[in-house]
Amino acid sequence: MSDFTNRRMLLSKRPIWTATTEDFTLEELPADDPGVGEVLVRVLWIAFDPAMRGWMNDGPSYAPPVPIGDVMRGHGVGQVVRSAVDAVAVGTLVTGNFGWQTYALASFDEGMVSQLEHVHDPSADRPVARRVPDGMPPTSVLGVLGTTGLTAYFGMLELGSPRPGDIVLVSGAAGATGSVAGQIAKLAGATTIGIAGGPAKVEWVTDVAGFDHAIDYKSEDVAERLSKLAPDGVDVFFDNVAGKILEAGISNIAQRGTVVLCGGISSGYSDEAVSYGPTNLSTITVRSATMKGFIVTDFADQFDVATARLASWTRAGKLVSAEDIQEGDVVDAVATMNRLFDGKNLGKQILQLGTPQ
Amino acid sequence: MSDFTNRRMLLSKRPIWTATTEDFTLEELPADDPGVGEVLVRVLWIAFDPAMRGWMNDGPSYAPPVPIGDVMRGHGVGQVVRSAVDAVAVGTLVTGNFGWQTYALASFDEGMVSQLEHVHDPSADRPVARRVPDGMPPTSVLGVLGTTGLTAYFGMLELGSPRPGDIVLVSGAAGATGSVAGQIAKLAGATTIGIAGGPAKVEWVTDVAGFDHAIDYKSEDVAERLSKLAPDGVDVFFDNVAGKILEAGISNIAQRGTVVLCGGISSGYSDEAVSYGPTNLSTITVRSATMKGFIVTDFADQFDVATARLASWTRAGKLVSAEDIQEGDVVDAVATMNRLFDGKNLGKQILQLGTPQ
Repeated sequence: MSDFTNRRMLLSKRPIWTATTEDFTLEELPADDPGVGEVLVRVLWIAFDPAMRGWMNDGPSYAPPVPIGDVMRGHGVGQVVRSAVDAVAVGTLVTGNFGWQTYALASFDEGMVSQLEHVHDPSADRPVARRVPDGMPPTSVLGVLGTTGLTAYFGMLELGSPRPGDIVLVSGAAGATGSVAGQIAKLAGATTIGIAGGPAKVEWVTDVAGFDHAIDYKSEDVAERLSKLAPDGVDVFFDNVAGKILEAGISNIAQRGTVVLCGGISSGYSDEAVSYGPTNLSTITVRSATMKGFIVTDFADQFDVATARLASWTRAGKLVSAEDIQEGDVVDAVATMNRLFDGKNLGKQILQLGTPQ
Repeated sequence: MSDFTNRRMLLSKRPIWTATTEDFTLEELPADDPGVGEVLVRVLWIAFDPAMRGWMNDGPSYAPPVPIGDVMRGHGVGQVVRSAVDAVAVGTLVTGNFGWQTYALASFDEGMVSQLEHVHDPSADRPVARRVPDGMPPTSVLGVLGTTGLTAYFGMLELGSPRPGDIVLVSGAAGATGSVAGQIAKLAGATTIGIAGGPAKVEWVTDVAGFDHAIDYKSEDVAERLSKLAPDGVDVFFDNVAGKILEAGISNIAQRGTVVLCGGISSGYSDEAVSYGPTNLSTITVRSATMKGFIVTDFADQFDVATARLASWTRAGKLVSAEDIQEGDVVDAVATMNRLFDGKNLGKQILQLGTPQ
């Protein structure tokens, strides 16, 4: 046992609707020392994704539910504080699915960060830690170079496949995935329209992320505004939100248009029974349109190429990404995650537990 | 003017929800004599399709709304009673978009029946009449060789694309389109499951149409039964119904499965605001599935081949099709159409106005 005290958040019951801190138990215990090939990591940043809410349910998701009594899953970045790997010095910045805890024991792997376990393998008894690449901020592996950036890349380029001149609509456009998806569509020659909530986000979407147009769903009639911005319809709709926003986009889909279903911040991740389903799927029929679902691991064999391109675009200033970093304690993880569902985040939602030493 | 009296149903106002006879005006007037190249047709059979309800609305559909004051559109089969075409004798059986009326003036065309105007061109002032092919019952051009058969053919083979060994689910399996779609999937080597309402239809689906399994949505929990019949999910779901049935199928879609959205008998064709949208589209996301809409005219360049195959399978006894022929007057057209929405029809819904002379 090390002399470090690990504080970890165990899922103690399945949330009914909005997850609360009461659904978790905080446990304090001494962190184990690393065995051969392992490192002990002090977790500095934890990343949040809407899909995490689904892992707390006992229902179908692309990853198995987090078992009751287990540490909540989640990617993070941390610093090695004990190393049983010759090549890894104390102080090395690493990333992995460290979970909602302050110290994580991890197997070390010299593989590329793009091979990181995007969905945690629950049969593995240790997360895998890999080096954070040089030349980018450490948290970029949680956002633009992480699951959200890769989701934007494959969802837009492999499923949406916009052509120059197409009109591409992105919901959740100020979010980690949507903002990257829209910028990639722009790189592909499309005209981009983003949907976001509130004046600050709308301004960021056009002025910083460079979308051609932005719609504020809190103050505008989305379907109405879309029908003016895209009178012949939207060729590609990358939807992160589901519910009424998905419905508004479907009502404006072009003939033979494509809707990429990337998830549903507004529904689907929570109690299915009370979520809202779009009532206008007949529009998909009469416009000969297509709706495509996917999960990022469908494209695991192309993660290296995608990560290299996302990094290159970022370094060249062609791709900006926002990170919404909240400082706090590990017990603040639930509240930080809920910012995603309350629409409070601008960019990748991250909780910072400490600073690198 | 001929000595024939035409009785026609004019759309006098847009139905709010269920269409009623009060939404139409019956007009009686002498039928015009045919000009050069034209024939006067006594309409004997009128065919009904759920899409017709959509044409009565002022909203988006794949065909323009029927203008207020116009004869309601609809395909039919009739017999030539006056001919101004040398090659066409009185008594010839012809088909075309004759509308809801007892006599129709039509341009005659010697083209194949498969080139018939599947969606009426409202800019044409005359429907086009073509010969009913020999060797099949005259009404087959309204069902298995008409729009519904072609919709089943292209929806299943071009969009669903089942492979041998796949599990294919078809809703509305006792209907004109669904029954043909399921049988085509069987010809392609799939295991077929049909959803229909009531014991008589369920029995027909398995015993006559040869589906491997049938689910009675009126007495069974569709999602529950599906999870037993297809524990690994349904590879192709050809949906005619929308609403709760679509939702039950989506909940059982296989990884990378395909949902073909063929229309919605239970919703969509009527008042959009009160129709039910599936709340589980997140399942499409997590299973990397696809939903595809289409209209039959997307494949107009392949109608000849499809019609020849459908006729060949029918003659060989590999494809059975049911016709639900109600006898009545042209004023019974609305009530006959509504049988589709009430789930009363078994096979293609047809109104017979008279018998060939």
